[in-house]
Amino acid sequence: MEISKAKETLDRLEREMFAYNYAMSSINLDARTAAPPETQEGRSVALGILSSRSHELMTSEDLWETVNTLYDNKEEAGPEYFRRSEILRKELADMRAVPAEEYAELNKLLSESQYVWHKAKAANDYASFAPYIDRLIAARKHIFDITRPGIDPYDVALDSFEEGTSREYYDRFFSELRETVVPLIAKVNAAEQPDDSWLHESYPVEQQRKLSQILMDAFCLDRNHCSITETEHPFTGGPTSQDVRITTHYYEDLPIASVYSVIHEGGHANYELHVDPAYDYNCLKGGCSMAVHESQSRFWENYVGRSREFTDWLWPRFCELFPDQTAGKSEDDFYRCINKAQPGLIRTEADELTYPMHIMVRYEIEKKLFAGELTSKDLPDAWNGLYKDYLGVDVPDDRRGILQDIHWSHGGFGYFPTYALGTAYSAQILDTMKKDLDFSSCVAAADITPILAWLTEKLYRFGSYIKPGDVVPSICGAEFSAKFFTDYLKDKFGRLYNL
Amino acid sequence: MEISKAKETLDRLEREMFAYNYAMSSINLDARTAAPPETQEGRSVALGILSSRSHELMTSEDLWETVNTLYDNKEEAGPEYFRRSEILRKELADMRAVPAEEYAELNKLLSESQYVWHKAKAANDYASFAPYIDRLIAARKHIFDITRPGIDPYDVALDSFEEGTSREYYDRFFSELRETVVPLIAKVNAAEQPDDSWLHESYPVEQQRKLSQILMDAFCLDRNHCSITETEHPFTGGPTSQDVRITTHYYEDLPIASVYSVIHEGGHANYELHVDPAYDYNCLKGGCSMAVHESQSRFWENYVGRSREFTDWLWPRFCELFPDQTAGKSEDDFYRCINKAQPGLIRTEADELTYPMHIMVRYEIEKKLFAGELTSKDLPDAWNGLYKDYLGVDVPDDRRGILQDIHWSHGGFGYFPTYALGTAYSAQILDTMKKDLDFSSCVAAADITPILAWLTEKLYRFGSYIKPGDVVPSICGAEFSAKFFTDYLKDKFGRLYNL
Repeated sequence: MEISKAKETLDRLEREMFAYNYAMSSINLDARTAAPPETQEGRSVALGILSSRSHELMTSEDLWETVNTLYDNKEEAGPEYFRRSEILRKELADMRAVPAEEYAELNKLLSESQYVWHKAKAANDYASFAPYIDRLIAARKHIFDITRPGIDPYDVALDSFEEGTSREYYDRFFSELRETVVPLIAKVNAAEQPDDSWLHESYPVEQQRKLSQILMDAFCLDRNHCSITETEHPFTGGPTSQDVRITTHYYEDLPIASVYSVIHEGGHANYELHVDPAYDYNCLKGGCSMAVHESQSRFWENYVGRSREFTDWLWPRFCELFPDQTAGKSEDDFYRCINKAQPGLIRTEADELTYPMHIMVRYEIEKKLFAGELTSKDLPDAWNGLYKDYLGVDVPDDRRGILQDIHWSHGGFGYFPTYALGTAYSAQILDTMKKDLDFSSCVAAADITPILAWLTEKLYRFGSYIKPGDVVPSICGAEFSAKFFTDYLKDKFGRLYNL
Repeated sequence: MEISKAKETLDRLEREMFAYNYAMSSINLDARTAAPPETQEGRSVALGILSSRSHELMTSEDLWETVNTLYDNKEEAGPEYFRRSEILRKELADMRAVPAEEYAELNKLLSESQYVWHKAKAANDYASFAPYIDRLIAARKHIFDITRPGIDPYDVALDSFEEGTSREYYDRFFSELRETVVPLIAKVNAAEQPDDSWLHESYPVEQQRKLSQILMDAFCLDRNHCSITETEHPFTGGPTSQDVRITTHYYEDLPIASVYSVIHEGGHANYELHVDPAYDYNCLKGGCSMAVHESQSRFWENYVGRSREFTDWLWPRFCELFPDQTAGKSEDDFYRCINKAQPGLIRTEADELTYPMHIMVRYEIEKKLFAGELTSKDLPDAWNGLYKDYLGVDVPDDRRGILQDIHWSHGGFGYFPTYALGTAYSAQILDTMKKDLDFSSCVAAADITPILAWLTEKLYRFGSYIKPGDVVPSICGAEFSAKFFTDYLKDKFGRLYNL
């Protein structure tokens, strides 16, 4: 195949893939935001057929040959086509290695296990979900055995969510974290806590919606290209850099939840919105990895949004919307309450300090599950024991324990660690940014344009053209180290709790 | 091809079509309800590819052969497969007759003309849209010339929207209408009009939303299978009988607009929701024609919703939601104001009596356009002249005249007449229904279950299995006659205006 022909073919086939993905996301978005409840049947018929067509395309000889032509002719392909061939070659090799029937069976298992998990969580009935954990682990291991024979399956799982990571990589990272964070949590637990009961009074949802609009403006989220709607669980999606959607959830007695979910999802959105639009219809679009994406949502949520500078900017606007609820309180109360650190049971409700411990629990369990040192029946005990060790809390039931997250029912083993890694990435990125611009003044004025421009220049515009492992070295000129994150936590929570 | 094989193949290929249609509707629904404004580019790339795939499937030899096998073996195919083959054979023959390039060109022209129409309407600039009318008429005629050579092209256009209709059919229908309605409008215009200014005060949208929920309940629209959202123009959609969506638009100073748009779209929805679910994934699903569909939306909107029995039921509920605005008014005022008949400029705002005249204007113009007796440059004058003749009103500008409707920019010539025909169908159906059940008592109690059951039994469940021309004869045991509709109008408006 000629190179020019290969480039043309790749463009055409990737556009075709784009159309299927666009369709399937649109259908799923509708399901999560607008569809009446009892409409699964038609949706699953449509999605089943569209995903078969998409799978056929991905495993076609035409695409495989095209990708390999470009991969084998790096020089002539040029850097962008080469990078596309590199990304696709890995993905296609995996898909082609798995027989179509096995692929279909796995999809069936995943759809069943998600359904069972939803019911099990609602009924606090771990026993009904347990067999699916074993089946999912077995299925994953079996597939990894075909696609990456001879490599430890949990290493493969970790690498599949974050290229270049492994147990060794995460063991080192988490041990550094544990060293700092576990004793820090103990000290914070012994210190005096701010009274945040006033932030749990009634905050009308209509007013919270207005606050979201203020935040959308503050974080430069252009409504021509980015919408906000409401769903049970907040998320970010969207097919191109011109079309991004974020969602949030309002709790009448917890206004801070939606404030930080909007800033968090807004961070994911700003990354997507600033990728080079030239990548819109190929695999270079979007963020370059799970951890790097999370580094950006956490950057905006924590390093910007929970900073003293930002909460001081937010405070008068918050008071204007909620005058009765905030009467007699100060911006100092606001900052301290927003940053209250307290071990809890639920990952998604955790503060900045205790959050990584929730991830460590999941990492330890996944590692042992893949090593065969635990099976599904051991998990509740293992989970509850680790929560006691790392966070000092007693888990009262499986609903708030082992059953709390949806990820495993999706087969997403190896995903959780990227959440903690991303947060640590962005601490190091922030350290470098502060040498280039006056971060503190920008945040104090909620003038985020210079910060956004800096991140776009260094990271966002590259989409998946840049490799995740190159992100920190290329931006910071040094290897990744967890030290920036642990130093940040020690400093911030040391001041907050006068340790 | 064996019959059993042909049935299997048809099922498979129709499911495939279902998936593409599901995807395209989901994308279009998102565009109309949720997508940020500047997101057309990615959407049109995706829709272009999906519609090409769908067109390939529709024009494939595989499907053509399958359909013909079933069509040619009526007995063995059995009634449902035969009817499916009959519907598809007509549709596919048309698609196959048009060369793919011509099909693509027409789609390009349609997309361009819709864009130009939107801008032209906003700017009140008919001249910019006019050339598209000529191009669209020429394109339609050219295609009809290929698919139905030797038949008058406007007859083909009418038949394409409502099987079995023609100029002769509509000429007879409209002349009967004209005979009754034009003098009736003149008498009403000379009579005293109720003062409905109180229905144009401020009615908060939040309260109007509550009223919509009351109406959804009253009309048995099960929220598990039918949702309501808000769009610029109300419509009904949805992929299966299990998944139907209606939309409405709230105007703060016109609460009656959304009341009757909810009942109207709810009528379309109830039809879709009660088609036999066995047809969900093939071409028998959904209503059997445009006019029959409209007969049902108008049935619920006008014969039920605007009846004295129903407005009396609605009145106390309306007062409870809007106590200040309704103070000092009676249920008699409510009924008379809701049914106020007054010639106006805008079709979508027209009352029951004047509505058919708006349709007649469009019918006369389309007929002359296809006959070459008018070209685009003559249209504003022709339009304004007919509005004066039929409705006695002067059209002040093209925005409220020739440019008001989107239909022609979609190439939908021949569509409008179905709106009037459907309304007349349902007057005759109502006449028969009243012999079987106590319509008046059911409506007075807003107990619509018996009415819905009757319509489901006689019409809804059959979906497109029944032919549109058979609907009135099979339900009423007689040929269609406009007399039921004209009698209804004479009676209702005679009483309302003491004529």
